[in-house]
Amino acid sequence: MAVYTEISDAELNAFLVQYDLGRVLSLKGIAEGVENSNYLLQMEAGFFILTLYEKRVDARDLPFFLNLLEHLAARGLNCPQPVRNKDRDALGTLAHRPAAIVTFLEGLSAKTPQMPQCAALGEALGRLHLAGADFPIVRPNALSLEAWPQLFKAAAGRADEVKPGLAVCIAKELEFLQKNWPKTLPQGVIHADLFPDNVLFLDSKVSGLIDFYFACTDMLAYDLAISINAWCFSPDFFYDFAKGQALFRAYEKIRKLDEEEVKAFPVLARGASLRFALTRLVDWLNVPKGALVHPKDPLEYLAKLEFHQKISDVRELGLIR
Amino acid sequence: MAVYTEISDAELNAFLVQYDLGRVLSLKGIAEGVENSNYLLQMEAGFFILTLYEKRVDARDLPFFLNLLEHLAARGLNCPQPVRNKDRDALGTLAHRPAAIVTFLEGLSAKTPQMPQCAALGEALGRLHLAGADFPIVRPNALSLEAWPQLFKAAAGRADEVKPGLAVCIAKELEFLQKNWPKTLPQGVIHADLFPDNVLFLDSKVSGLIDFYFACTDMLAYDLAISINAWCFSPDFFYDFAKGQALFRAYEKIRKLDEEEVKAFPVLARGASLRFALTRLVDWLNVPKGALVHPKDPLEYLAKLEFHQKISDVRELGLIR
Repeated sequence: MAVYTEISDAELNAFLVQYDLGRVLSLKGIAEGVENSNYLLQMEAGFFILTLYEKRVDARDLPFFLNLLEHLAARGLNCPQPVRNKDRDALGTLAHRPAAIVTFLEGLSAKTPQMPQCAALGEALGRLHLAGADFPIVRPNALSLEAWPQLFKAAAGRADEVKPGLAVCIAKELEFLQKNWPKTLPQGVIHADLFPDNVLFLDSKVSGLIDFYFACTDMLAYDLAISINAWCFSPDFFYDFAKGQALFRAYEKIRKLDEEEVKAFPVLARGASLRFALTRLVDWLNVPKGALVHPKDPLEYLAKLEFHQKISDVRELGLIR
Repeated sequence: MAVYTEISDAELNAFLVQYDLGRVLSLKGIAEGVENSNYLLQMEAGFFILTLYEKRVDARDLPFFLNLLEHLAARGLNCPQPVRNKDRDALGTLAHRPAAIVTFLEGLSAKTPQMPQCAALGEALGRLHLAGADFPIVRPNALSLEAWPQLFKAAAGRADEVKPGLAVCIAKELEFLQKNWPKTLPQGVIHADLFPDNVLFLDSKVSGLIDFYFACTDMLAYDLAISINAWCFSPDFFYDFAKGQALFRAYEKIRKLDEEEVKAFPVLARGASLRFALTRLVDWLNVPKGALVHPKDPLEYLAKLEFHQKISDVRELGLIR
């Protein structure tokens, strides 16, 4: 659930006067993103998204995110484009927080993505990886292998409250991944959170990729593994081979995986499962009792992890050439 | 904080195909209203508000609300206008809930209303009362004098947790109001919740009144008392005489209070204070511990009540002719 910072009339006007967008016509807090306050902003020049960056986002990362969006948009990718103010700054200050205005994208996210949407996503992900190839700024992935032991430590003592045996299961998996995590695969800009929420469609075409606030520099095939997990399981956590096949095939039309990536994919899929199991577990154990926010179920990603533990060849996931 | 019902792709499409608004282009849950799920809906025909009526709204009241909006809009009032579907129905079903589409209004609510906005509100309230005069449906006010003892009963045992002595103070006030509540004042459609949140401005002109889901048939001057309370106190709960004077004067330009209303106003203002003190008290005592929703402070309305208890003539509030 998004946060909504209160913006005073004077603060809003002082911020918007810095832009060449005409008068403000409306401003509505929207339920999008979980880390920041997002508003749909209507100016005389049209509709925009106004984002106030809340505490969980490191302000030092904001130039990476905003420059990346400009870089990708300049290469024809459908993603929000930062609007620069009269001083040519993409980043300003509003209500004592870093704030930015980006373009508003039409489209709806798919609640239950079907095969054509999985295919469209695969193609969009491939295009994202190509468009990001020459992006010059590096941002290490703060939620990859090195971060997992610490996340686990924050939850280990109470993990078995969620499921008996969970702590041992995660500890073993961590050990496995630390031994087997690939180190030499092709890297580049990855979205790192390309769930159905963050992909907009018009009909079955991708009209926009949004919410780049986990984007970082990491293995491209790891991004694909995250998407396979997010798009190709049924609501009761069974792998949908046909959707996987469609996603892989569409991705490879744009960017073919090399032999090392193909070989490492089952391990990446395990890591991509553990990463979301861990962050969800921490959120699950730290939600205030009786709170009206519903944290996402860590067991969903545990089920996906258990599935991938039995896979030895990516063909079993649908990558068939 | 608003609720967001999950709407499946199939449910959304089945609902929207009933309307003559073209293709759906986007849908964003917005933080508006507290009782219902509200979405900003972009169709080829433009922007709209889609509302799903949640449990706290009685479905039997919906025809009152929707017909009222049509009635008011037909008389030139700036309020959301229900969009009828191809079968000419203003009310449909979406995600197993009653649902309606209304027009989207430009404008921003004032976080800290100033004198010109208080005046504009007074005029808009007067126009609302005139426009509603010939509305044929009657809906009793479910949160007036008869309802207060029951609300108090729900909170009495724990009221002193909020402030020592609060239970006795409310019990005495209830007794006073039951003896002195006026019975013969002019009645009509009242908004009953015309707080700054529910009034949109462009520059200093009212561009829209929204959120009519407490609207009912009651004393017109009681609606004015609710607005005086909501618009004319400082953030630290001191009465702002100048704002009150501006609001009264602007209201009376459109609809002059009669002598009985003028005489009864201090009592109405006490009732209008107690009504919000009571509902806020119940919410305050029932919020889950550690929840991320912040219920509104009942003591704000207790302070307003204590202020009005010392008033004997509406001239002290700024109604000076």
